[in-house]
Amino acid sequence: MYSLYYAPGAASLVVHWLLIELGAPHELRLVDTQAKQHKSAQYLALNPNGVVPTLIDDDGKPLYEAAALVLHLADRHAQSGLAPALDDARRGEYLQWVLNLANTLQSPLRLWWYPQDIEEAQADTIKDGARRRIEATWDRLDAHLAAHGPYLLGERVSAADFYLTMLMRWTRNMPRPGHEWPHLAALAQRMKARPSFKTLYEREGLTEWA
Amino acid sequence: MYSLYYAPGAASLVVHWLLIELGAPHELRLVDTQAKQHKSAQYLALNPNGVVPTLIDDDGKPLYEAAALVLHLADRHAQSGLAPALDDARRGEYLQWVLNLANTLQSPLRLWWYPQDIEEAQADTIKDGARRRIEATWDRLDAHLAAHGPYLLGERVSAADFYLTMLMRWTRNMPRPGHEWPHLAALAQRMKARPSFKTLYEREGLTEWA
Ligand SMILES: N[C@@H](CCC(=O)N[C@@H](CS)C(=O)NCC(=O)O)C(=O)O
Ligand SMILES: N[C@@H](CCC(=O)N[C@@H](CS)C(=O)NCC(=O)O)C(=O)O
Repeated sequence: MYSLYYAPGAASLVVHWLLIELGAPHELRLVDTQAKQHKSAQYLALNPNGVVPTLIDDDGKPLYEAAALVLHLADRHAQSGLAPALDDARRGEYLQWVLNLANTLQSPLRLWWYPQDIEEAQADTIKDGARRRIEATWDRLDAHLAAHGPYLLGERVSAADFYLTMLMRWTRNMPRPGHEWPHLAALAQRMKARPSFKTLYEREGLTEWA
Repeated sequence: MYSLYYAPGAASLVVHWLLIELGAPHELRLVDTQAKQHKSAQYLALNPNGVVPTLIDDDGKPLYEAAALVLHLADRHAQSGLAPALDDARRGEYLQWVLNLANTLQSPLRLWWYPQDIEEAQADTIKDGARRRIEATWDRLDAHLAAHGPYLLGERVSAADFYLTMLMRWTRNMPRPGHEWPHLAALAQRMKARPSFKTLYEREGLTEWA
């Protein structure tokens, strides 16, 4: 039984979604980020980065970093087929995409949402620079999907597509949301059609970008 | 036989180091970054991000993202023991550390070296913010090593330590280099004592931080 420390719509979303998709028994622990619960001594003992998500593994061990949890859960529940096996020719490409999303989307998206990580007084400049990097990534990913889609690994859906969908969701109110790129929109459409997406929205109480 | 597109001391370093450590047959392809070879149409066809490294896998497929290549090579050469196996209780922690290094070190280090990714005109402010985040990460990692070291996974060296050592090396000329933190210094010492480190330095023609 896993326990997931989460906040609705946050980086925990992809972990929650995968737990549902994989049919992995889990319980949810809501982190009140408004009340800064993720900066409490109790939470920092689980995750010294002071961010959500944290996943408590079967054996009671706390684990963090959303992208690591994506990789870990998909491997642990191998029968789902959401991760190419270690000896699968697509394994390297799968790892590449997860890390590429972490570096070229999640990281500038963090700057977009938290420019104060760098400098409050230059928030507009930082957000602007982050936005340009994010849009360049959409260009590149859309071109990849046009040539090699409909999923990141082609015909085969993988955990990387769940991660990409969460990151696309985060841009829904940006000047140019990811879903304005046609092949990204098509991928989002397919991912949203999964029954697990509906369950996820119900459990997190989400309505936007349904 | 792997082929590695690299530049001395760049993000390719950890991949090169692991290829040597793992005894994996490989050839090196020097990318002249001064001449902007990594922005040439030929290179962008291999790696549309226009950065080093790119690894050409056994089957001729180009793969990128340094941290993904770390994970991939360590799994592919499992007999080295540099990656906990999928069913090893330490697997989740291992993935967590690789992703945590990518997010909390490599990503702000990129801003330190390339503030123009965000905004040239605010380079000093951006570097300053990046530096504060990097130093906070050193605090956190040093505390982890003090309690649970000497390696990220305790007594057992893993590919994550190679990655950490490369990132520490990148800070050698920063106001407070990573090796000023005592447990990080001890980890660097151990990693530099590996014969593969000497070979790496010879092959890349490196001398600093030996
Ligand atoms: N690298 C972390 C980042 C997680 C992250 O940025 N979480 C945000 C919510 S989406 C958070 O907890 N923000 C609160 C804060 O930083 O104070 C991960 O991928 O798990
Ligand atoms: N996320 C990439 C980043 C690699 C990266 O930043 N490489 C640098 C050298 S350390 C580079 O190629 N810089 C040249 C440039 O961006 O123009 C990875 O981890 O492979």
